Amino acid sequence: MQYSIGIDIGGTNSMMGIVDKKGYILFEDEVITRDYPQIEDFIDAVYTKLGPEIEKLGKKQFKGIGIGAPNGNFYNGSIEFAPNLIWKGIIPLAKLFREKFQLESAVTNDANAAAMGEMMYGATKGMNDFIMVTLGTGVGSGFVANGKMIYGHDGFAGELGHTIAIREGRLCGCGRKGCLETYTSATGIVRTAYEFLETRNDESLLRFKEELSSKDIYEAAVKRDALALEIFEYTGKILGQSLADAVAITSPEAIILFGGLAQAGHFIFEPTKKYMEENLLIIYKNKVKLLPSELKESDVAILGAAALVWS
Amino acid sequence: MQYSIGIDIGGTNSMMGIVDKKGYILFEDEVITRDYPQIEDFIDAVYTKLGPEIEKLGKKQFKGIGIGAPNGNFYNGSIEFAPNLIWKGIIPLAKLFREKFQLESAVTNDANAAAMGEMMYGATKGMNDFIMVTLGTGVGSGFVANGKMIYGHDGFAGELGHTIAIREGRLCGCGRKGCLETYTSATGIVRTAYEFLETRNDESLLRFKEELSSKDIYEAAVKRDALALEIFEYTGKILGQSLADAVAITSPEAIILFGGLAQAGHFIFEPTKKYMEENLLIIYKNKVKLLPSELKESDVAILGAAALVWS
Repeated sequence: MQYSIGIDIGGTNSMMGIVDKKGYILFEDEVITRDYPQIEDFIDAVYTKLGPEIEKLGKKQFKGIGIGAPNGNFYNGSIEFAPNLIWKGIIPLAKLFREKFQLESAVTNDANAAAMGEMMYGATKGMNDFIMVTLGTGVGSGFVANGKMIYGHDGFAGELGHTIAIREGRLCGCGRKGCLETYTSATGIVRTAYEFLETRNDESLLRFKEELSSKDIYEAAVKRDALALEIFEYTGKILGQSLADAVAITSPEAIILFGGLAQAGHFIFEPTKKYMEENLLIIYKNKVKLLPSELKESDVAILGAAALVWS
Repeated sequence: MQYSIGIDIGGTNSMMGIVDKKGYILFEDEVITRDYPQIEDFIDAVYTKLGPEIEKLGKKQFKGIGIGAPNGNFYNGSIEFAPNLIWKGIIPLAKLFREKFQLESAVTNDANAAAMGEMMYGATKGMNDFIMVTLGTGVGSGFVANGKMIYGHDGFAGELGHTIAIREGRLCGCGRKGCLETYTSATGIVRTAYEFLETRNDESLLRFKEELSSKDIYEAAVKRDALALEIFEYTGKILGQSLADAVAITSPEAIILFGGLAQAGHFIFEPTKKYMEENLLIIYKNKVKLLPSELKESDVAILGAAALVWS
């Protein structure tokens, strides 16, 4: 068997690809998730795209289908109560794909899929112990220890974004307060920007924007806007502190930062690294690499989901 | 091979035992660690105790020696900069034992050893994902995921006691501030008691003690002393909050509390459980068992160290 299928289900778009063992993507396409309020219709739409390609290459050459999805559970193959998806409740995703495609199917959450992709094809190839942190709309994470993904007892391990960074801090979508993702996600950094703009008087390029995005903050930082730089410093401090605590638990060889906010490069990596080191217990200091992903942002999700099938 | 040797090295005493596969301790003895400023002399003293017993049972029946020690590193078999031990710097413990006894030897830290013991003989038999938390002079921990101990990249994983419970909180022996162990260890709860006694006026049985120990606080709680009960509530709150964050990382089936403070039973378990549940992300609520160890306090260290050899 030479090929596997990787599918990344997002709230808006879903990407799919046919991948060989070396990580080469032979075929790639997408469907608009929101167009299919019924999960069965969504799967039909995916089948319409992939079916002919599978026939062409020969079904026997396919090892299976790996799916990355928010709140995806590896153990039972379902999506459970994903706040950003159009399908509500518990969706037995792997079962539905298996029935439609007649191929083995496995599900995990998007951050775990990204970790698998990085381990198989990217920056953590050959590493047994690392943490993948995705800084997107939320903050996701995948923990690998002893060369294996940590799914935990119920399949939901790795919610670093929902550890508490600041007690009684910002209200989180999960209903609790102070979660890491309310500060260090692409949306969290925008909240910081609004907070800084409201409570202070410094001049800043950010004051001239109608609606801020994390990209605006990045672009202002590129222009050496002091407030934007301070926003990154603040964000990196909170992320670095949380990473120092995570290191004390699994003692990884590396931490990979990935996703929208990670694309801000040294603006986010430098303060994060600085504050992580400052906060590390002495036995971990200067040992843990903080690295960007080595995969193309658009490829990781597909490669990672596909990697789920190979392993 | 039917037997293994378990040795638990402590700052004051070191316990040793000969253990069979079922966890029965055939022989047990101890030496005073502090009497041997030279590590070689310490090993000679241990050999003097164990050597004749090994001869009696037949050396070929022994699988090896497992050693639990503060700052013990599984990968290289050494103790590294253990603040509470008389031997300074890096001590190649496994190598020295191997040379003296001519038996395979392995080292890990005391909390990891306790986790191994619990997994092999105690409350977590058959569990693939759990956390062992030792509430002694410090707070130690051992994380098991996918049925395996997490040692991490450098062999020092599992320092839950040195994750930050309260930013800019109490000064810790590690030089940083706010570590969990400054609040929820047997010594941490005593610090809380002194803090409460100093800053408040409530009557309490604790006011009549010259020097407080965690046992005094427990005994006052048994007598329904309001301040003592509040001290346990406060301690359980901080521990419960930290455990909720740890659950979000490895999603364990159970958390075992062990060591001096855990012997306070429901006085510590109840508030810890309550605040852990209150602080858990919804997907983890009412899923994680909080359990006491099922092994005798005095046996765990030996059984755990011995378990290191069996696995």
